[in-house]
Amino acid sequence: MNNESQLLIKEAPINNILRLVMNDQNSKNALSNKMISALIDAIAFANDDNSIKVIVIASKGNVYSAGHDLKEITQARKGLDDGESFFKELFRSCSVLMQAIVNSSKPVIAEVNGVATAAGCQLVASCDLAIASNDAKFATPGVNIGLFCSTPMVALSRNVHKKNAMEMLLTGDMISAQKAKNIGLINNYVEVEELESTVMQLARKIADKPSLTITTGKKAFYEQADMSLSKAYEYTSEVMKNNILREDAKEGISAFIEKRSPSWEEE
Amino acid sequence: MNNESQLLIKEAPINNILRLVMNDQNSKNALSNKMISALIDAIAFANDDNSIKVIVIASKGNVYSAGHDLKEITQARKGLDDGESFFKELFRSCSVLMQAIVNSSKPVIAEVNGVATAAGCQLVASCDLAIASNDAKFATPGVNIGLFCSTPMVALSRNVHKKNAMEMLLTGDMISAQKAKNIGLINNYVEVEELESTVMQLARKIADKPSLTITTGKKAFYEQADMSLSKAYEYTSEVMKNNILREDAKEGISAFIEKRSPSWEEE
Amino acid sequence: MNNESQLLIKEAPINNILRLVMNDQNSKNALSNKMISALIDAIAFANDDNSIKVIVIASKGNVYSAGHDLKEITQARKGLDDGESFFKELFRSCSVLMQAIVNSSKPVIAEVNGVATAAGCQLVASCDLAIASNDAKFATPGVNIGLFCSTPMVALSRNVHKKNAMEMLLTGDMISAQKAKNIGLINNYVEVEELESTVMQLARKIADKPSLTITTGKKAFYEQADMSLSKAYEYTSEVMKNNILREDAKEGISAFIEKRSPSWEEE
Repeated sequence: MNNESQLLIKEAPINNILRLVMNDQNSKNALSNKMISALIDAIAFANDDNSIKVIVIASKGNVYSAGHDLKEITQARKGLDDGESFFKELFRSCSVLMQAIVNSSKPVIAEVNGVATAAGCQLVASCDLAIASNDAKFATPGVNIGLFCSTPMVALSRNVHKKNAMEMLLTGDMISAQKAKNIGLINNYVEVEELESTVMQLARKIADKPSLTITTGKKAFYEQADMSLSKAYEYTSEVMKNNILREDAKEGISAFIEKRSPSWEEE
Repeated sequence: MNNESQLLIKEAPINNILRLVMNDQNSKNALSNKMISALIDAIAFANDDNSIKVIVIASKGNVYSAGHDLKEITQARKGLDDGESFFKELFRSCSVLMQAIVNSSKPVIAEVNGVATAAGCQLVASCDLAIASNDAKFATPGVNIGLFCSTPMVALSRNVHKKNAMEMLLTGDMISAQKAKNIGLINNYVEVEELESTVMQLARKIADKPSLTITTGKKAFYEQADMSLSKAYEYTSEVMKNNILREDAKEGISAFIEKRSPSWEEE
Repeated sequence: MNNESQLLIKEAPINNILRLVMNDQNSKNALSNKMISALIDAIAFANDDNSIKVIVIASKGNVYSAGHDLKEITQARKGLDDGESFFKELFRSCSVLMQAIVNSSKPVIAEVNGVATAAGCQLVASCDLAIASNDAKFATPGVNIGLFCSTPMVALSRNVHKKNAMEMLLTGDMISAQKAKNIGLINNYVEVEELESTVMQLARKIADKPSLTITTGKKAFYEQADMSLSKAYEYTSEVMKNNILREDAKEGISAFIEKRSPSWEEE
């Protein structure tokens, strides 16, 4: 099977970066059951491969992802239970995917070329970082088809302020890349010609840091987010004490004091 | 009693939108005990009326609302208990109002013409959406009269970042509509001549969506906000599964696939 | 000992404002064990002194604070336990400092002249308000030396949106004062020549408010922040009822109604 026929292309890692490319243009890179599974598998694969340090989720075509596959959903209604078991599993597995991104030990960057809607917008919100093309657009338009974007709003409302989230959810309107940056949904936007190189440069900057430092930090970030202030400090103080006793901090601090480049020995 | 003499004007609903107009210009649309009761009653009325799909809270005059009624407060001090029971009930009922907005099944939009201060600013923060006139101003100035805006900050701090909230609370200074938009307190501001039409257009856009989808989504938004990520996904996955099995999603998705306008049969 | 040789200069209070000036330019105003202790002591001193109403944390030189003292850390590794007990105590006491700022009854303003990195950036994030020079820069660069900024992110992630925090933490890159303002890390930035006067003007505005009102409000702000909406309203309604029965609110509201300046009688 060559790359072009795959639903999700796993490019050969370059500089320890795994670039995943959603490649289902016929269905607007829908988060179908198969696409969700492919993404979950690819992230699990990256988690287990020590040579991979950053994951990028990109896409082919002018739609990043249009969210769930409405044709698949319509087909599922024909089941004996009107699709109930299918839908239950669909939303469960989609939520597993979004949490797999958050819980992955490797940073995940969304490379958003084009339109990201519904669960596609949720995918962007769930990533640690997101860079978009300047003509990218974002929406949670479920309200227009009678299906409120209830799972997407979990990620959305943890990225942007309440009124910005509510406006997107209640109107279903598209917002521009500029507005998405202003409200906190993406980190930045660039000319479409520069999108891939900008993302890969950002990914490389992160991949060049010591892996254990990055994975320690990402885990601690999400762990402490839901804690009270005092619990969060108790927890992260312990994280820092353990970090500073490790080889990464010893080498990094020595190199800094000796004004030389650090040499990260990766396991 | 004609409209002009009412504390809170309930305009005849147009396009399923209930527009409430605070009309107590002599007291700068203060959130007096009577105004609070009138707003609570009007929201309860809207909740029970299936024909009403969106609530707008607007005002007469150049002050949206100046917060609590200081004359009423001063009068209450003359009571046997120095007003303690009155104040206890005042802050309780005001908090009931703010939570009634959040907990209402219908989206509530603040149409902010002019100045919104103290509990008036809290009213704006508590609404799901807010559009202001371009000369609107916002403040939590209780600190200037020895009464910190402690209840307003509950809503304010759930709309904007910490330092922006603290600056408003500790200085009591007015901020412009532009700054209010930048920090997340309002969605947008427009020329005063276009304020009502802009709000009614936004309200209509939302009122034209299927009611059950909107009410399901609004409820789920606030429910999931305080949950951990995994609990929030567990909860909203169930909400989406139930939503997709309903008529609103069936019709909406079918219409989308068949490239026709959906027909929302409302109960 | 004259001021110039002190690690932390406690300037003589002016207008009830205690201005603390970090003065360890040789170590870039590092948050060494001694600096941390000096800051904790100074804040405790201010808490106990009724004449002090606002605390400013400023600095000498062109670095606000570079975070922990890497030379001190390297020295500590020579201990029998490789420094473990030292590091444990260092992160504990640093977390105590950050929480002492949050828990101080007096508002704390960061006057950020120059670069604030790692725990120095955390110091800015922990203050209630922050004004910077227009050439100030901010970073959480621990990732570059193998020591993720895990405790700084507790404060950072409670000031700015997720993706902005993650970008700073994963890249370690410097951000400008303008970006720091846009994302919510600081309140404002001004020309360096105007920095001290701007901060002192802001501090004076707050110091001129009734002390008990300010201390009541600051405490309530952080208390309610972690509560559910209904608990937060229950708690702050009680705070407001108690506040309104006090002399500060009586005098403030009377003065407002009588259109005169209030006279705050401080204990």
